[in-house]
Amino acid sequence: MATTKRSGRPAARPRGRRPGPSRTREEILAAARSAFAEAGFKATTIRQVAARAKVDPALVMQQFGSKQGLFDAAMELPFDAPAMVARVTDGPRTKIGERLVTEFLALWDDPEIGPQMVGLLRSATSDREAAELMRRVIGGRLMAPVARAAGLDEADLRAQLVWSQMVGLGMARYVLRLEPLAAAPASEVVAWLAPTVQRYLTGSPKR
Amino acid sequence: MATTKRSGRPAARPRGRRPGPSRTREEILAAARSAFAEAGFKATTIRQVAARAKVDPALVMQQFGSKQGLFDAAMELPFDAPAMVARVTDGPRTKIGERLVTEFLALWDDPEIGPQMVGLLRSATSDREAAELMRRVIGGRLMAPVARAAGLDEADLRAQLVWSQMVGLGMARYVLRLEPLAAAPASEVVAWLAPTVQRYLTGSPKR
Repeated sequence: MATTKRSGRPAARPRGRRPGPSRTREEILAAARSAFAEAGFKATTIRQVAARAKVDPALVMQQFGSKQGLFDAAMELPFDAPAMVARVTDGPRTKIGERLVTEFLALWDDPEIGPQMVGLLRSATSDREAAELMRRVIGGRLMAPVARAAGLDEADLRAQLVWSQMVGLGMARYVLRLEPLAAAPASEVVAWLAPTVQRYLTGSPKR
Repeated sequence: MATTKRSGRPAARPRGRRPGPSRTREEILAAARSAFAEAGFKATTIRQVAARAKVDPALVMQQFGSKQGLFDAAMELPFDAPAMVARVTDGPRTKIGERLVTEFLALWDDPEIGPQMVGLLRSATSDREAAELMRRVIGGRLMAPVARAAGLDEADLRAQLVWSQMVGLGMARYVLRLEPLAAAPASEVVAWLAPTVQRYLTGSPKR
């Protein structure tokens, strides 16, 4: 079932082999996303998701194989990571930080993707598989290619520094909703964070 | 039982009214810290903690009243927050970012406090009470007083920006242990992060 789970290509949607009625599948996935977003991976059960989607738990198992399979399918973020990387890396290198923060905020503010990111982050701290997925999706598919494109040494370390700032922002603004940060306009958040990300990607530490 | 839970003074150790044999109490708290650190709040049970501490679950309930009471007691970080704030705010304002990052890394690297911070962070994304505790401890008792001491406008927003970077770092370096960041010497992390925190506390956004 989940043979491609560790392939590093979560966007490939490899679980189309047992489509079932696609409307039901989408309803189960939507129920799973909101359940994972509210409670995280550990505290969410197949039974709860089935109840939300108004289907039999056996159908969820049949379609997704396991809670992990359901989680992986629900968390396949429906965005084109290479296209996003290209939008960030194209253009003047002096504005790469600004473009990255802008694109990242747009993901969080997307009505479909945002809740999935919250679910991923809620699960990532208490679940090893979710943590691995967050490393792969946010780190491997976004930050690492951007840092490599910036072309300086220590690309992995730079990518992780950017990851730390962007994930911390996600936690403060979208998961815990700290005010006034949560209500600040995106442009203001970009103005504060862009120089940070710019320095992590193209600058140097202060010795 | 947990009458002082929302008093905003988690270090006051208000639950000394039913001390019981203090060695057992400490053993239960140590077991709770490692259980919460591994699995987070939701997935940890009183029964598991009791089994780790080799005591009866009823004794845990008797001493702490509830899982929430146990969590609050286990997460009362044994550090002197006002003293830490004073160490950060004393000295030249141009180095306040460096002092804050240095002090914060020392907390995470402390063999007793570090694991508790990991437990707090693991729980904070999936549990409302843990999130509230993290806001209070890291935000209310550390970042907010530092930002207010820095004396500029928008102190709350500045404190939350600092919080976002430091919590994101905690997640990357200590919870998910991303390499090479997790193995980098503290001095290198300080060199990268100090200018970020300095700007959030004393600088301005880039318009």
